[in-house]
Amino acid sequence: MASSASDLGGKKPQRQHQLFLGNFIHSKSREELDYWHNTAVAVSSEGVILAIEKDCDEAKAKAELLPRLKWAPSDVEVTVTSDKQFFFPGLIDTHVHASQYPNVGIFGKSTLLDWLDTYTFPLESSLANRAKAQRVYTACVRRTLSHGTTAASYFATQSTESTNVLADVCLSLGQRALIGRVCMDNAAMCPEYYRDESAETARIATEKSIDYIRKIDPTYEIIKPILTPRFAPSCSSASMTSLGKIAAETGLPVQTHISENKPECELVDSLFPEAGSYTNVYENNQLLTPRTILAHGIWLSEEEAALISQRGSKISHCPCSNTSITSGTARIRWLWNHGIDVGLGTDMSGGYSPSVLDAARQAALVSRHVAMGMAEGKERECSKLTVEEVLYLATKGGAIVMGMEDRVGSFAVGMHWDAIQIKLATITELGDREEDGGEAGNVDIFGWESWDEIVAKWLYNGDDRNCKKVWVKGRLVHQRK
Amino acid sequence: MASSASDLGGKKPQRQHQLFLGNFIHSKSREELDYWHNTAVAVSSEGVILAIEKDCDEAKAKAELLPRLKWAPSDVEVTVTSDKQFFFPGLIDTHVHASQYPNVGIFGKSTLLDWLDTYTFPLESSLANRAKAQRVYTACVRRTLSHGTTAASYFATQSTESTNVLADVCLSLGQRALIGRVCMDNAAMCPEYYRDESAETARIATEKSIDYIRKIDPTYEIIKPILTPRFAPSCSSASMTSLGKIAAETGLPVQTHISENKPECELVDSLFPEAGSYTNVYENNQLLTPRTILAHGIWLSEEEAALISQRGSKISHCPCSNTSITSGTARIRWLWNHGIDVGLGTDMSGGYSPSVLDAARQAALVSRHVAMGMAEGKERECSKLTVEEVLYLATKGGAIVMGMEDRVGSFAVGMHWDAIQIKLATITELGDREEDGGEAGNVDIFGWESWDEIVAKWLYNGDDRNCKKVWVKGRLVHQRK
Repeated sequence: MASSASDLGGKKPQRQHQLFLGNFIHSKSREELDYWHNTAVAVSSEGVILAIEKDCDEAKAKAELLPRLKWAPSDVEVTVTSDKQFFFPGLIDTHVHASQYPNVGIFGKSTLLDWLDTYTFPLESSLANRAKAQRVYTACVRRTLSHGTTAASYFATQSTESTNVLADVCLSLGQRALIGRVCMDNAAMCPEYYRDESAETARIATEKSIDYIRKIDPTYEIIKPILTPRFAPSCSSASMTSLGKIAAETGLPVQTHISENKPECELVDSLFPEAGSYTNVYENNQLLTPRTILAHGIWLSEEEAALISQRGSKISHCPCSNTSITSGTARIRWLWNHGIDVGLGTDMSGGYSPSVLDAARQAALVSRHVAMGMAEGKERECSKLTVEEVLYLATKGGAIVMGMEDRVGSFAVGMHWDAIQIKLATITELGDREEDGGEAGNVDIFGWESWDEIVAKWLYNGDDRNCKKVWVKGRLVHQRK
Repeated sequence: MASSASDLGGKKPQRQHQLFLGNFIHSKSREELDYWHNTAVAVSSEGVILAIEKDCDEAKAKAELLPRLKWAPSDVEVTVTSDKQFFFPGLIDTHVHASQYPNVGIFGKSTLLDWLDTYTFPLESSLANRAKAQRVYTACVRRTLSHGTTAASYFATQSTESTNVLADVCLSLGQRALIGRVCMDNAAMCPEYYRDESAETARIATEKSIDYIRKIDPTYEIIKPILTPRFAPSCSSASMTSLGKIAAETGLPVQTHISENKPECELVDSLFPEAGSYTNVYENNQLLTPRTILAHGIWLSEEEAALISQRGSKISHCPCSNTSITSGTARIRWLWNHGIDVGLGTDMSGGYSPSVLDAARQAALVSRHVAMGMAEGKERECSKLTVEEVLYLATKGGAIVMGMEDRVGSFAVGMHWDAIQIKLATITELGDREEDGGEAGNVDIFGWESWDEIVAKWLYNGDDRNCKKVWVKGRLVHQRK
């Protein structure tokens, strides 16, 4: 029922102008969604929003907006949302291991460190086989596109060739991505069959990966490299230092893990006793930049949160993963109160779901578990995240974490058209689902709901079936009937 | 893409014999799934399993099994599962409010008592309108059937007429159900616009509802009444006493709520100070029977658990609801250790998901939150529920809670054919999803997975799309392409 970019006859990215009409919903602030109805959004052939007109239907847009833009109607493709449909910013996955995609749902009762050895390293290392890498990454990127993920920060594997395959796949299928070759050279902690030989070979491999991405997307229009020390226990100080140096010299972003579960934190303390904290290990290697994405951050101290905030580094919250492999419950309100920006990560396959919408849902649930761990009172009540807040995390919050908030995450003139078109099913007067040839999905609208109730219903029961079209920088990268 | 029973041309329940071939998976015990491959299951025209043959393909079944059963091949409908398909027992929802279905996902930041007043009572009371009740119940039963729910214990509303509509809908669409008219006569706690006038009118309305169900399904083949005091705060002692008396006289099952959130428990203590515990309120009114389903049971004391165990009453665990409306985290291992039988409830719309598979998934997640609240050690580790255990809760556990374990919840000669046929999508060598005209769903099988990994992948990412056919007592009640 679904097709993605390469099914569209290998057409080049669209070069037509586009006009989108109807309902638009996005985050006005962390606490509030903005609802635009009867609105027109004009998107250039380059995928940039050039105009937003309120109180504007198709006739008015053609009579007034198109002439003002000097667009001939024949050069413009029009997409209209009707009742119970709306445009929403593309969803942003700030932490995901493309290489672990085949393992989603497979974690048994494991926790982080044994999970890595049992499930993760064997699969990741097997992607040194190019054909297997192509197969796994294609499946992963198609699947995440189908759920409306327009931008993702990926961990590939330790293999440069496998990492290059992921870069190819994202560019070809049109998903905006940060692509990270995984650095892991600590012989005491990484398996012999899957690690960098030395800090020096790790640096060289990283640079090769950067060069490759620069070659295939020279302006980093769609994909960009991200420096990726796996996490402190996997890396020698020398390799972290060299990645920190590259970050300082190139301004490239950085991603790693921090403070995910307690045994891991204790391991870091024992490996880096002089550092004084997990966060300091990264600080000491110039890895705590304003372009750094730190996944998890569950067990951070006040001092660590203050340092991360001071450096402007970001946190990727991965609620599905954190619950599944029993890591802990991250305190999002507490991070926000420290002035730290937060986005969502599916963290496949620590998390089992490819869907950022599911991550938003689970962020709401985990925040209630955070609340349930507290005494009654204002702080407890405040810990609970609202529908508006978790959808902010999934879009604008994620854009900030990825360093892309000037281009994606919400709708404004000058921003790129990274968007999804959402359609929900209607229940007839007889109680049947209105079928219209497509897949109706799992959300039933009875017709009396307010718009904020419609959005809540989508958050809690929506899935890829509701995501009818997906665009990245104006290019249609996924659609289904 | 989906059709349910009434779309099948209003055909009568199937009267053909049926032969099912291929892979069958069900709970051997709480800890273990049994995998039968290359197996034949013969189901009579009455929907009862008459034979199970291992190492038996279609040819052998036709050559040996059918003659033994004296079935002519032309009288037998054959359904075969191929690779990556399997038959599984129908899923069982032991606690669900059909009347609240339109509100799924709509709960804001509320908790139990304000949630009832704000969202729940207004919707439930509006179903006194027969057309609205028909519409809402039809949507709910079709939706739950599509997720593979073959049996459910329903709360309808306080209105007898609305309750009768639910009985009609379940019988017509073929879903096995316990149907409860909700008793709520405490004027101090229930809104004036939605309550029973007195204990006496509540009793009369309950009896009318029982009479109606007996009239339309005299042997309780598919539907059966269940006595339903809403929960202690909604009911006068007099009305609970009268329902307890009916339970004792008729042997009918009972359902209610217990110990869901802390303010509710405090309210019960203040309303029934002489009882000594929430559980004792029900005990004192003869409501604690071996056929009683108690929803939630989060905050029970050791003494209460011991009493429930002694009476043989059951618990319906509703993880999605308990997290969503911040009620707490039920301790399933602790309940099991007290010898209490447990099943799963979606508890719509306290829970937002219509899917028992999702409830199983969330039971696994909530058990990890229970673990995370404990100190490191064996008890913590043991709190986590396995894939096998949550699927047991969804099938055999639920059957025990509903008092139907001699008929449904697993596969054995003499049991009824309440089953679902599961199909998962395969990823091609190129990384595409194999399309075969139907909806592929959200689970991707690469081909190297073991059967327990396949089941884990289904548990964590499966949805209604994977549920291709659904049978209740041999009748095909839902199918999709």
